[in-house]
Amino acid sequence: MPRPIITLTTDFGLSDHYVGTMKGVILGIAPQASLVDISHDVQPFEASGGGFQVAQAYSYFPPKTVHVVVVDPGVGTARRPLLMEAAGQYFVAPDNGVLGMVFGREKHKVRHITAERFFLPQQSATFHGRDVFAPCAAHLAMGKKPSAFGRIITDYMRPTPCTPYQTARRVWVATVLHVDRFGNLITNLHVREFPDLEERSFAIVVGMARIGQVSRTFAEIPAGQPGLIQGSSGYYEIVVNQGSAARTLGCGTGAPVELTFY
Amino acid sequence: MPRPIITLTTDFGLSDHYVGTMKGVILGIAPQASLVDISHDVQPFEASGGGFQVAQAYSYFPPKTVHVVVVDPGVGTARRPLLMEAAGQYFVAPDNGVLGMVFGREKHKVRHITAERFFLPQQSATFHGRDVFAPCAAHLAMGKKPSAFGRIITDYMRPTPCTPYQTARRVWVATVLHVDRFGNLITNLHVREFPDLEERSFAIVVGMARIGQVSRTFAEIPAGQPGLIQGSSGYYEIVVNQGSAARTLGCGTGAPVELTFY
Amino acid sequence: MPRPIITLTTDFGLSDHYVGTMKGVILGIAPQASLVDISHDVQPFEASGGGFQVAQAYSYFPPKTVHVVVVDPGVGTARRPLLMEAAGQYFVAPDNGVLGMVFGREKHKVRHITAERFFLPQQSATFHGRDVFAPCAAHLAMGKKPSAFGRIITDYMRPTPCTPYQTARRVWVATVLHVDRFGNLITNLHVREFPDLEERSFAIVVGMARIGQVSRTFAEIPAGQPGLIQGSSGYYEIVVNQGSAARTLGCGTGAPVELTFY
Repeated sequence: MPRPIITLTTDFGLSDHYVGTMKGVILGIAPQASLVDISHDVQPFEASGGGFQVAQAYSYFPPKTVHVVVVDPGVGTARRPLLMEAAGQYFVAPDNGVLGMVFGREKHKVRHITAERFFLPQQSATFHGRDVFAPCAAHLAMGKKPSAFGRIITDYMRPTPCTPYQTARRVWVATVLHVDRFGNLITNLHVREFPDLEERSFAIVVGMARIGQVSRTFAEIPAGQPGLIQGSSGYYEIVVNQGSAARTLGCGTGAPVELTFY
Repeated sequence: MPRPIITLTTDFGLSDHYVGTMKGVILGIAPQASLVDISHDVQPFEASGGGFQVAQAYSYFPPKTVHVVVVDPGVGTARRPLLMEAAGQYFVAPDNGVLGMVFGREKHKVRHITAERFFLPQQSATFHGRDVFAPCAAHLAMGKKPSAFGRIITDYMRPTPCTPYQTARRVWVATVLHVDRFGNLITNLHVREFPDLEERSFAIVVGMARIGQVSRTFAEIPAGQPGLIQGSSGYYEIVVNQGSAARTLGCGTGAPVELTFY
Repeated sequence: MPRPIITLTTDFGLSDHYVGTMKGVILGIAPQASLVDISHDVQPFEASGGGFQVAQAYSYFPPKTVHVVVVDPGVGTARRPLLMEAAGQYFVAPDNGVLGMVFGREKHKVRHITAERFFLPQQSATFHGRDVFAPCAAHLAMGKKPSAFGRIITDYMRPTPCTPYQTARRVWVATVLHVDRFGNLITNLHVREFPDLEERSFAIVVGMARIGQVSRTFAEIPAGQPGLIQGSSGYYEIVVNQGSAARTLGCGTGAPVELTFY
C-alpha cells in the first residue's frame, strides 16, 4: 500500500494543542500517514474561508488523499459528518457548506458518516475534529471503503456559489473571495469565465483604484501601484507590487469589484 | 519496529528556524520518525503553559510516543534534563515543573539524563532543545532503553497542582488555566471532581458574568452570551457562542472563578 | 534508499494554503519524503531574512537533505531558478541572493535549473514555489542527479556579505542581523572572528545600552537587564534575561552595534 496522505484544514490555530491532538489520533490508526497542514488560521466559525483554502490546494495532491476540514460552529448539534468523494480524493467535513467550492467544481458523491465504530469510543460534544473526523479520515486512509462509513445522501448543505453577476450589458459585479498574507485581493473572477480579459478594453474598479490591464508578473507593475494579475489558482487578483493591496486600497474579503467592458 | 512518533512543545514560535533545526537533529538520528507539533506558542518562559498543552494531548497518542517539551528559561544552568516514563509514553523536558500536570495525573518514573553520549558533540549554553533534548528524544524513539539515559531520581521539581479550593461550605474558588484561540476560558474545575454539576443548583461567577447551568454544546447558548460547557479535556470551560469569552468578560489566564452551590 | 528530507523556507505564512499545496506537489513525486518547515514567516520580499533562517539550520540536517527556499519577489521574470550543492546537501532557490549566507560559508557549486521536464506541466507566473521549486526538490530527493537539472553557472547573484567593519584601530561597527521571537538581537559578530571576547576589555554599544562582558547563560544576567551571550549559531546576541532586548533597547534588524576594545 502506498503511504497515505491526510491534509488538515481547521480554524483551531496553532497555539493550542488541538491540531497536534488530532494528529495523535490519526497516527494511532494510520501510523504510516503523511500529515499536511493546509491552514489552521481560517477565521473562527467561517466555513467559507476553510472551504476556500482546501479548494485551492486539493488538485495538487495525489489520488486518494484524504482532506479533513473542520470549521464547525455547529459541533455537537444534529449537523451531520460528511464523507465526499470527488476528483479521486476524499473529503471529511461537517455538513455546513464548508466543501461548497469543491461541490461547484467537481462531480462528487456525498455520504452521511454514521458508522460510529470508526469514532473514538468517547465523544465530546465540542471536539469532533479529534473524536469523529480525525479517526474517520485515518480509517479511510488505511483503506476502509467509503461505503463502510454511511449511506449516500443528496440533501447536504450546498451554499449558492459566490460567482460574479451581470448588472448591465457590459458590467459585472464581482467580489473579493479572500485576502492572502501578502494583502493580495483574490477575486471571484476566474480565467475560465473571463478568458479574454487581456485582449479587451476593460476597467476594474475596487476601492479607490481603477485598473485597465492585466499584468503577467508582479515585477511588471510599478512598485507600490495596484495591478491585476492572473493568480496561481486561476482567479484574477488585485495586487500591489511589493506592497499590500488590502492596505493600500482599504479593502477586504467581501469588498465589491466592478468590471466594465468598453 | 513500528514508526516512532515524537511530539514537540516549545516556546520557540514558528518564525525562527529553532523548531526546524531540532527536527533536523531528530531525523538525522531517527529517520523514520513522525514529527508532530503540539504548540510552539507557549508564552516565552512560562513553563506552566507548555505543560498544559502537552497534558491535554498526550493521552491521544499511541504507546511509546516521545513528547519533547522545551520551555526552558534556565537553559545552560544546573537545572537537570529529565526523562519521564508515564502512561506508556516518554517525556523529555527540563527539570522546572513543566511536566507538573502529568505528574499529578499519572504514575510516573523520572530519570536525570546524564548520558552525554546521546547529546550533540558540541553543546551551546542557550539551545539545549537542539543539543540535548532533540537527540535524546530521537535515541529513545530508536529504541534505546530509558535506563541508558540516567538514574531514577525523586527530587525533581513538582509544582503544587493548581486545583480549586473550598472557602466556605458551599463555595469553591477556581481559576482560569488557559485561554484558547477562540477565547474560551478553560477552568481548573474538572468533571472528575465536580461530576454532578448538571444536576445541582449552582452559580459560577467570572468577571461580570454569572452562569447557572451547564450547556451541552455551543449551539445551545444564545449567540454572544456566556455559557458553561464541559470542555473536550474534561475541564469546564466558560465560553461565548460565536464569540470570545476572554474579550467579552475581560478575563485571562489566572482570573478567579467562583463556584457556589445552593 | 533512505527516507529523503526536504525542508521549506518561504515568506508565504501559514494562514494560506500555499505551503500545503507545495507539500502536495512534493508528496506526489516523493511519497516517502519527510517534510520539515524551517520558517514561513520570512518578511515578505526580504530574501536576506529567508537566507538567515536556512543558514542557521542546514548544518543540523543529514547529508542529501534538500532545502527549498522561496522568497521570490521576482517570480515570473527572467530571474533564474538555482540548484546549489554545498556541505553535502542541496539548496533550491531563486537567483536573488537568498542563499548568500551559505555561499559565504561553504564551498558550493551552482546550477541554473533549465530542465522543464521536472516542472509541473502548467506554470503560473506567480507561484513557482508550487510549479518549479517544489517538483524540482522532490525529483532531487528521489535521486535525480544534479547535472540533470541544468548547467553549472558562476554568475549567480552573490550579495556582499554583511560582516562587521573596522572604523578605527580598536573600533568595529557591526549590525543586528535578525531579531528572534524572544526579542534577542542576533548580531553579525561571530565567535570565529572574535574568539577571545571573553578575555578582553571591551564595550558593546547598541541603542542606549552599553555592555562590557560576555555572559554564559541567560540566568547569569539580572532579570530585565541587557547582556551579551554567545548565541547557539555562533553569533553574539544582545539579550535581556526574561525580556525582549528589541523592546527594551528599541532596536531591530539593521540597528548599528559598536564594539570598542580597550
